[in-house]
Amino acid sequence: MVFGRGCFSQLDDILAERRTLSRGFMVFLLDDVFSEHPLKQNVPLQENDTLILVNVDDEPKTTYVDKLSADVKAYADNVKAQPLGVIGIGGGSTLDLAKAVSLMLNNPGSAADYQGWDLIQHPAVYHAGIPTLSGTGAEVSRTTVLTGPEKKLGINSDHTVFDQIVLDPELIADAPAQQRFYTGMDCYIHCIESLTGTFLNQFSRSYGEKALDLCREVFLDPGPDSDDKLMMASYCGGMSIAYSQVGVCHALSYGLGFVLGLHHGIGNCVAFDYLSEFYPAGVKEFRQMMDKHQIELPRNLVADLSNDQIETMVDVALVLEPLWENALGPDWRKIATREKIRDLYLQM
Amino acid sequence: MVFGRGCFSQLDDILAERRTLSRGFMVFLLDDVFSEHPLKQNVPLQENDTLILVNVDDEPKTTYVDKLSADVKAYADNVKAQPLGVIGIGGGSTLDLAKAVSLMLNNPGSAADYQGWDLIQHPAVYHAGIPTLSGTGAEVSRTTVLTGPEKKLGINSDHTVFDQIVLDPELIADAPAQQRFYTGMDCYIHCIESLTGTFLNQFSRSYGEKALDLCREVFLDPGPDSDDKLMMASYCGGMSIAYSQVGVCHALSYGLGFVLGLHHGIGNCVAFDYLSEFYPAGVKEFRQMMDKHQIELPRNLVADLSNDQIETMVDVALVLEPLWENALGPDWRKIATREKIRDLYLQM
Repeated sequence: MVFGRGCFSQLDDILAERRTLSRGFMVFLLDDVFSEHPLKQNVPLQENDTLILVNVDDEPKTTYVDKLSADVKAYADNVKAQPLGVIGIGGGSTLDLAKAVSLMLNNPGSAADYQGWDLIQHPAVYHAGIPTLSGTGAEVSRTTVLTGPEKKLGINSDHTVFDQIVLDPELIADAPAQQRFYTGMDCYIHCIESLTGTFLNQFSRSYGEKALDLCREVFLDPGPDSDDKLMMASYCGGMSIAYSQVGVCHALSYGLGFVLGLHHGIGNCVAFDYLSEFYPAGVKEFRQMMDKHQIELPRNLVADLSNDQIETMVDVALVLEPLWENALGPDWRKIATREKIRDLYLQM
Repeated sequence: MVFGRGCFSQLDDILAERRTLSRGFMVFLLDDVFSEHPLKQNVPLQENDTLILVNVDDEPKTTYVDKLSADVKAYADNVKAQPLGVIGIGGGSTLDLAKAVSLMLNNPGSAADYQGWDLIQHPAVYHAGIPTLSGTGAEVSRTTVLTGPEKKLGINSDHTVFDQIVLDPELIADAPAQQRFYTGMDCYIHCIESLTGTFLNQFSRSYGEKALDLCREVFLDPGPDSDDKLMMASYCGGMSIAYSQVGVCHALSYGLGFVLGLHHGIGNCVAFDYLSEFYPAGVKEFRQMMDKHQIELPRNLVADLSNDQIETMVDVALVLEPLWENALGPDWRKIATREKIRDLYLQM
């Protein structure tokens, strides 16, 4: 990994080491919010490389991953060259697309076939992640969260992890304030979930505590180095997940995402606000952060849904068994009943 | 990396992935303090592998690295197989030997030829580090500190970094109390040096702050998870050096090591106690830790040396230009004059 203001300019040198075939090319997946931004001009495209603007207005779908992978293969046939790497530049969704495409270039079938834990058979092609939003931890996590035909669930695998990350705090300077807040809260909330969970060792505790300290500085006592701190918070938060898990909030947020298409960060915030009984201190501090940043959460998102839609949300949340077990212990099913989860959703 | 109590038992599985040649073998370098310890029996030796007990009563010398590398090459010729990896199991000196041997198996000449920054031409063979003492950060650093014919200086290179580390807090449980303290203080002191230095970004600051917090917990408020915390402190302290540097204390300690053969950890402690003018808060807290752990530092180590020996110590300390610049800024030569350094040594 490289870290530092302006370090994006090192990307060309970093990729040079990976250009081991004369008939090879790099694939850059760039969030299309940057289609008119100077960042696009600074992507170090070399001959044969391809830059694909990706749209993440919706959270990444397995069908989109399949389409992008097919596009890259068609491009490879066309230029008679081989993809040497996939470089994602954007927020967590774009980074997840880059991870997923790099996996699917070396694994047969559909991305939906690999939603779950350790189902990937073949290593991905080289892939690098360059965040332009901080908080998800996608830059270091071993998952790529995808919405499939049946569920919202990550491809969780050692092969998912980026080979290289480039953390340049200057790239997150232009993020819209609300999006920055929601994405930052993803980090804050997953630290609260992991530090209060039952799966934890000192590795994950150390990283989680540091991420939490940094989130507090960024959102309660901001200063000129807040972008640097938020980028490190996201990195530390992601690292902490190596030996821990998220919990109730993330499980519920997945259901909101699947049925309502609510983005992960805002979905976490919506859910977390109703979880005082599980995370009392965390929810209290979260509300202080919301007040300070004058954030108004959307309300009454669920009440008008059909019963089937609500049951689907409950189903999606319940698939995330490791999250529930982390939060509530091995007997989690006694606490997180369908009724309990439905009741929580109905408040949102 | 893997982290956790008992994770040493995963080593065999981890190495299995690296046994890609039927005519290949692993080299285990084990600190000879474990020659009668159960740990030796638990080293996962496979057919053709070789276990070498290494002696680190003296700090690692380039001549010792050259001998070990020649021994491994002779062994390879003998069994008609190729070294696939070098696994170091021990304290910082043993880890440094493992790094250096893995480099010298793929690079011609003597280890002394590569003392400096980025002089290594060819990647090392696969190498893994398994600490049995915590504090040096050798498990994550890009240096292997060696005493050569002319100087004590590391082989600093991206290729020096371990491919794999196995951090099992159970392995440090039996360390002698004094050695544990001196090695832990190596971490504490390098955090003080890096956090007060002029080379620092938020990556290194975050890791350094966490390492410092953990050192304080371990040495001022110890508990049952102190081994886990000390192992993480060492890891975080080592990571913090990626974008920072150590300072005055380490520079002086190198001189003590070169002339007196004083080990790095105790050398740092001896020097740090005289550095209140550079690190006032750090030295004060360090003395609290010494009091709590009833540590008596050796004194009057330098007064009886010849003038030539003292001048040699000054020479060795002054070679470490990046350390001085980090501590004192670009005009460091005006402060760290030969006279000043000599005066500091004469107090020790």
